[in-house]
Amino acid sequence: MTIMKGLWLEDGALAFKDDLPYPEISGEEALIRVNLAGICATDLELLHGYYAYCGIPGHEFVGEVISAPANPALQGKRVVGEINIACGVCDYCMSGRRTHCVNRTVLGIKNRPGAFADYLSLPISNLHVVPEGLKDEIAVFCEPLAAALQIQEQIHVQPGDRVLLVGAGRLGILIAQTLALTGCDLIVLARYPQQQAILKSFKISVVDHNAIPDQSQDLVVEATGTAEGFAIANQAARSGGTIVLKSTYKGNTTVNFSQLVVREIRLIGSRCGPFAPALRMLANGLVNPLPLIDSTMALEVGISAFERAAQSGVLKVMIKP
Amino acid sequence: MTIMKGLWLEDGALAFKDDLPYPEISGEEALIRVNLAGICATDLELLHGYYAYCGIPGHEFVGEVISAPANPALQGKRVVGEINIACGVCDYCMSGRRTHCVNRTVLGIKNRPGAFADYLSLPISNLHVVPEGLKDEIAVFCEPLAAALQIQEQIHVQPGDRVLLVGAGRLGILIAQTLALTGCDLIVLARYPQQQAILKSFKISVVDHNAIPDQSQDLVVEATGTAEGFAIANQAARSGGTIVLKSTYKGNTTVNFSQLVVREIRLIGSRCGPFAPALRMLANGLVNPLPLIDSTMALEVGISAFERAAQSGVLKVMIKP
Repeated sequence: MTIMKGLWLEDGALAFKDDLPYPEISGEEALIRVNLAGICATDLELLHGYYAYCGIPGHEFVGEVISAPANPALQGKRVVGEINIACGVCDYCMSGRRTHCVNRTVLGIKNRPGAFADYLSLPISNLHVVPEGLKDEIAVFCEPLAAALQIQEQIHVQPGDRVLLVGAGRLGILIAQTLALTGCDLIVLARYPQQQAILKSFKISVVDHNAIPDQSQDLVVEATGTAEGFAIANQAARSGGTIVLKSTYKGNTTVNFSQLVVREIRLIGSRCGPFAPALRMLANGLVNPLPLIDSTMALEVGISAFERAAQSGVLKVMIKP
Repeated sequence: MTIMKGLWLEDGALAFKDDLPYPEISGEEALIRVNLAGICATDLELLHGYYAYCGIPGHEFVGEVISAPANPALQGKRVVGEINIACGVCDYCMSGRRTHCVNRTVLGIKNRPGAFADYLSLPISNLHVVPEGLKDEIAVFCEPLAAALQIQEQIHVQPGDRVLLVGAGRLGILIAQTLALTGCDLIVLARYPQQQAILKSFKISVVDHNAIPDQSQDLVVEATGTAEGFAIANQAARSGGTIVLKSTYKGNTTVNFSQLVVREIRLIGSRCGPFAPALRMLANGLVNPLPLIDSTMALEVGISAFERAAQSGVLKVMIKP
């Protein structure tokens, strides 16, 4: 059995290992060499027990197909990959909701070795070929950009909408760029000067918390995953308006349901999104993720990379095998 | 000053009075003699401090226009009336969302004497003339039926949807009838044998809690206003599905937001609805509220009427001035 390098998560502790099992692929899968992988908030939360995952973490990647027996034309192509591996036969899969497959495994999150390693495997049907000329540093943002676009798969953001984004972290800045493209009247609550500077470079308005009138926003996207963020969202949304929950939350949140009823607020959970439009938008430059990159570190110092990514205000830390 | 009979709510205590001030009307208002008024869950909650209202309660009514200076043709007509009295100039009013007017008063609920009295006043623009031949006993259900229809103003219920209604009280049975008209695969969780019997008489399926598969419903309407009801709704809704909150809740509710995010649940608060279609559906017999009527009692024994309405499983108690 061939071995490889990678990060290993077990009981909330992360370790670098150089003797991990090499992925074995079935007929419908591809073996992929990882070129670059990004650390996201979910990865950091896995370390804190958000989900009891044991294995190689990492789900944002770009890589090269080493072998794909069922589709040899893929060999040598650069690809990104959808992270939910669906069974194809459950009610969700049969109704076209594969990201909610009840039997799904999730790359680097649930029962499926992830991208912080030399190699990974994914079903061929999960792969999207990266257009020539699109750099790895950009293509690697396809997964979080797809998650940002999921908001617009779920709701219709109108050009005339007043929209508030609460939180401008790794995902938030991508969300801000996609929302701005609708022409909506977007304002963003960003905590750190660096986040504010990036947003301003995109001509996106940054606001102070106190400058947001109560009940003024048609849509609020809550991307902090905190009770404080939700309280701000709830106060800023107009009656009859929408709050999108675009981040996972620690533990339970207390909500005044009567207020939701009387104010007819719409609360929408939002998770993984469509890769094809994300890749298009990266390829044609509609979204520019490059200012998000904080640093790129070798797989061997992956633990340092996680430590850096966990610091307040640090944006995207990349791991390069 | 002329006086009249009515119920009076003050500090959570209800009293019958025969010396209440007669409504004075402004130019754009109508004076209406109340023919019949229904007690709803909100009225009962007002007694328990849901909202600090002092005055005449009651907001479901049918009556006769005694005087309407700005539109004399209304005199002698039977009418029902929308309960939110909007300012017409705030942002909500200007954007067509008058039920959310920030300056609104609400008939029998907020700064506006209600329907459990000989007379009430409302702006002429709030009134809808009841078609000839439509009995008072039916027309009086226009307000709660409008609230039921608000669900379909907010979301598109598709004929192929699997829909669960949790709770079959006064409002629930009207909701069940409106949902059934879509052709959807409707099941209802009804606590009391009488509720179950009424639903069955409408060929609507009643289910046991244990017979509802987890994550099986495209839409769940939660009409109990309890944490238990929400827990059932949350368990029954499929990922990517919708939960409509169609009842006010006591205090705060604890919610696992991460589950809402991962499962992409849509949570929608729903309150007052459109009167015109409600009146049409009552007039053409698409909805039959008559089996809901428990009893009709005189205004003088209004306190007994409230006591009866507060008993478990009792449906609609009417008050007749």
